[in-house]
Amino acid sequence: MADNRSLVEFLAEAVEAAKNAGEIIRKGFSEKKNVEHKGQVDLVTETDKACEDLIFNHLKNKFPEHKFIGEETSAAFGTSELTDDPTWIVDPLDGTTNFVHGFPFVCVSIGLTIGKVPTVGVVYNPIFDELFTAIRGYGAFLNGTPIKASSETELVKSLLASEVGTTRDKSTVDATTNRVNSLLFKVRSLRMSGSCALNLCGVACGRIDLFYELGFGGPWDVAAGAVIVQEAGGLVFDPSGEDFDIMSQRIAASNTHLKDKFIDALREAEATLQS
Amino acid sequence: MADNRSLVEFLAEAVEAAKNAGEIIRKGFSEKKNVEHKGQVDLVTETDKACEDLIFNHLKNKFPEHKFIGEETSAAFGTSELTDDPTWIVDPLDGTTNFVHGFPFVCVSIGLTIGKVPTVGVVYNPIFDELFTAIRGYGAFLNGTPIKASSETELVKSLLASEVGTTRDKSTVDATTNRVNSLLFKVRSLRMSGSCALNLCGVACGRIDLFYELGFGGPWDVAAGAVIVQEAGGLVFDPSGEDFDIMSQRIAASNTHLKDKFIDALREAEATLQS
Repeated sequence: MADNRSLVEFLAEAVEAAKNAGEIIRKGFSEKKNVEHKGQVDLVTETDKACEDLIFNHLKNKFPEHKFIGEETSAAFGTSELTDDPTWIVDPLDGTTNFVHGFPFVCVSIGLTIGKVPTVGVVYNPIFDELFTAIRGYGAFLNGTPIKASSETELVKSLLASEVGTTRDKSTVDATTNRVNSLLFKVRSLRMSGSCALNLCGVACGRIDLFYELGFGGPWDVAAGAVIVQEAGGLVFDPSGEDFDIMSQRIAASNTHLKDKFIDALREAEATLQS
Repeated sequence: MADNRSLVEFLAEAVEAAKNAGEIIRKGFSEKKNVEHKGQVDLVTETDKACEDLIFNHLKNKFPEHKFIGEETSAAFGTSELTDDPTWIVDPLDGTTNFVHGFPFVCVSIGLTIGKVPTVGVVYNPIFDELFTAIRGYGAFLNGTPIKASSETELVKSLLASEVGTTRDKSTVDATTNRVNSLLFKVRSLRMSGSCALNLCGVACGRIDLFYELGFGGPWDVAAGAVIVQEAGGLVFDPSGEDFDIMSQRIAASNTHLKDKFIDALREAEATLQS
């Protein structure tokens, strides 16, 4: 088990890697991008690859005994199975579609699990220069200032975030819009930013009251955000109400007051799908 | 008819008013807000009122012969009928829900119509410090740099923006989510920022390829954005394909390449609603 001093060192190195990667993202943001296609919607940019190389090289050099999981994990670095070992779970560029279009919700997401528990989290949006950080047990911060989840207690006054994802088969799209339909009768409004990690940070700093997403890319979208939400006094959980499973590609987040109401609303939305 | 020199003066005064109002918004953004309710979802803040007073007083003082239309128009200043006279159409705080929650898509929107045609437009997001401006015939600018709509030609590679609005009766919500369902099969992804004026500016600077919204508040949401889109080489039109009517609470916007394809997709979405 890592001691507190190690955790601070892990965070410091992750922040340095995130800031350096963010510099690459910021430079590329307004330049013409050379884009490859991964399926119809998913995009990977050269920036994405450059950032992943930078982050993995940085952390691998500092912590050669740690494991690594990433969206574009290469054979040289990566693993896909989460173990109890300290494991860096990295999305070098969350919001690749936004990046390609110049929509400013893009970020670097670097999480560290120890014993499979999200323990250190860094999410950096280089366009807004917003750095979200957390260490388990030591609070969550935005650019060094403590943050906390909202104090809202009513769904009807809550701002919900979600995403439509990248899968476009009929059953997935129908399920997505039916869920939105059911939830719109219960919440104030809906935002879609295009970045799962930034949606979680939005919950952590109270800009958003509720967030759920199903079928996102993988644990790299949520590993950092989960501990940031929790350390901001918020909760992460499975949309069904079960415990959050970092490998499940399913997440919901809210403050403590709204969790049960939100789960009821999500269950009701699922029931609509079955009927 | 105003000469070019007048138009430049109109723009300069609108920018000054927008910047001053933006300062009020920026200060209020992270402070606790005292909120009134207008219906279940619509919010008006003290900031909204302070900004409207500031903008209308500024413009009324400079151009006492002009007419004024605003969301919160007071009897002292306002009119609700659009005439051929030079008319300032103002939303002092577009994105009031975002403002209350601290979600950073908020702006001041100041448009001037002459002969009912949007002729001068200023949209200022004080959180990002982004100032969008346009004078009919003289181009569109972001913080002084010329902007243009995207060059995308395929719907499937296009980023769509829309909003769920504030009306929560079943037929409106069903129509909203059914439209989204139909469109999701045709576009890359969907963003909801919560600000109609900033969605239009997103089209103008190419961050977004497509935008439509039905049932927004009024002409103050689109008067400035419409001329900014047009001067960036984009198009504004009714989602049905008819000409844009500033008083209709219906708008769509895209680049020139995508317009016909977007209208076809919107018509198909409407046809789904009828069936």
